[in-house]
Amino acid sequence: MSNKQMPIERSIPLANKVANHLREQLRSKTSNDERLSGELEIASELGVSRGTVRQALAILEREGAIRRRQGDGTYVNSQVLNIKTRAETAYEFTELIKSLGYKAEIVLINAGHESASKDLAERLNVKPRAKLLVIRKLFFADDKPAIYCTDMIPEELVCKPFEESELKKPVYDLLYQQCNLRVAHILAEFTPVVARGELTELLKCQEGEPLALFEELNYSEDNKPVMFARIYYREPLTRFTILRKKT
Amino acid sequence: MSNKQMPIERSIPLANKVANHLREQLRSKTSNDERLSGELEIASELGVSRGTVRQALAILEREGAIRRRQGDGTYVNSQVLNIKTRAETAYEFTELIKSLGYKAEIVLINAGHESASKDLAERLNVKPRAKLLVIRKLFFADDKPAIYCTDMIPEELVCKPFEESELKKPVYDLLYQQCNLRVAHILAEFTPVVARGELTELLKCQEGEPLALFEELNYSEDNKPVMFARIYYREPLTRFTILRKKT
Repeated sequence: MSNKQMPIERSIPLANKVANHLREQLRSKTSNDERLSGELEIASELGVSRGTVRQALAILEREGAIRRRQGDGTYVNSQVLNIKTRAETAYEFTELIKSLGYKAEIVLINAGHESASKDLAERLNVKPRAKLLVIRKLFFADDKPAIYCTDMIPEELVCKPFEESELKKPVYDLLYQQCNLRVAHILAEFTPVVARGELTELLKCQEGEPLALFEELNYSEDNKPVMFARIYYREPLTRFTILRKKT
Repeated sequence: MSNKQMPIERSIPLANKVANHLREQLRSKTSNDERLSGELEIASELGVSRGTVRQALAILEREGAIRRRQGDGTYVNSQVLNIKTRAETAYEFTELIKSLGYKAEIVLINAGHESASKDLAERLNVKPRAKLLVIRKLFFADDKPAIYCTDMIPEELVCKPFEESELKKPVYDLLYQQCNLRVAHILAEFTPVVARGELTELLKCQEGEPLALFEELNYSEDNKPVMFARIYYREPLTRFTILRKKT
């Protein structure tokens, strides 16, 4: 787990750091419907500018963690803050597994170069049959296989060489260190499926067991597709919470 | 479908109306990465205040439909705008079915009063065994059962009497008209399941077919739980798209 601290080193913008700090603070300290201090007060407490606090609060508002009432201040939504696995958040899988109270482990199933299918080439905006770096990993929760993940990155994006041993690190770190890319957002499609054939062997589950399949197109900060991932979750990691808004 | 216009009558805040208008306009007119007009320009075009435009843009930014680049203006994320079934949005089921190109129909399976289980009473913040109004409905897509939904509303919230025929209308209209409540957000838990027993009969599907189960706690604008819903989706309505952000 030597990579545990990596996300911090990825030069996270200050507003995100402040948002992470406030999220933790609110999670541990406040009850529902509590009112937040003003922007200026938070800014002076944390030693950052009011603009940074405003950006951080905008991040928390987008998540539904706080809500603003016009002319009445900002309130905490503790039931939203206390969700452990939000479908809207892209977690590192080992962090997700640990946050749910399990011991986490990664096994690299295989990695290599494969040609993009027509459909995949279109989604990733590369030429048909372009080479992809394909990495298959299995994540264990308390020694049981829980997540099977296939990451596919256009080879033309990989600008720095790497050792095979590095393929086990979080793929977002790989993208940052080998491709100089930071993933900003992900369009994920999820659908329920049942385990069959190879999946039952990898995930050590019964034929017909329900799995959650996520197919994810990852976008960089300048809004270009940079990775496609196919992820199967099995029990006990098949429950996701989403905050839905009425239009 | 005489209720189709109902959502408009529910006195939607002006900022939401403006957001809905801009969303439609951007969806039909713009390509990805296009830059948006300024707040003042949009305000004068639509004849609303700049503050209202700002609120509307904040709604679109929360959805990921637009993004602001500091010191560089606001841009359109057309791949996000063009998602038809966003998991973060609570659609009326008939609207969802129609937007996917199917004919929509509702059948009321049954409705009546039932006592809340201990777990449900806790979630809805009512006394154990408190009476709930329970409504079970089946939604058809092109004459095939596609969604089976059970809505549970604490009876103490129902302040106006209603005819049985009204139970078929969208439950958000029922909550507004009979309970004077507007649902602001929903905490939904998603999990993949397989069809068994009664579900296969209702949804006319095979034993073992994968279904998407959503269990949803609906919150009013003042952040109180007002309804619990259990919803099963079968093919072709089992695919949901979600925008995930890196923390």
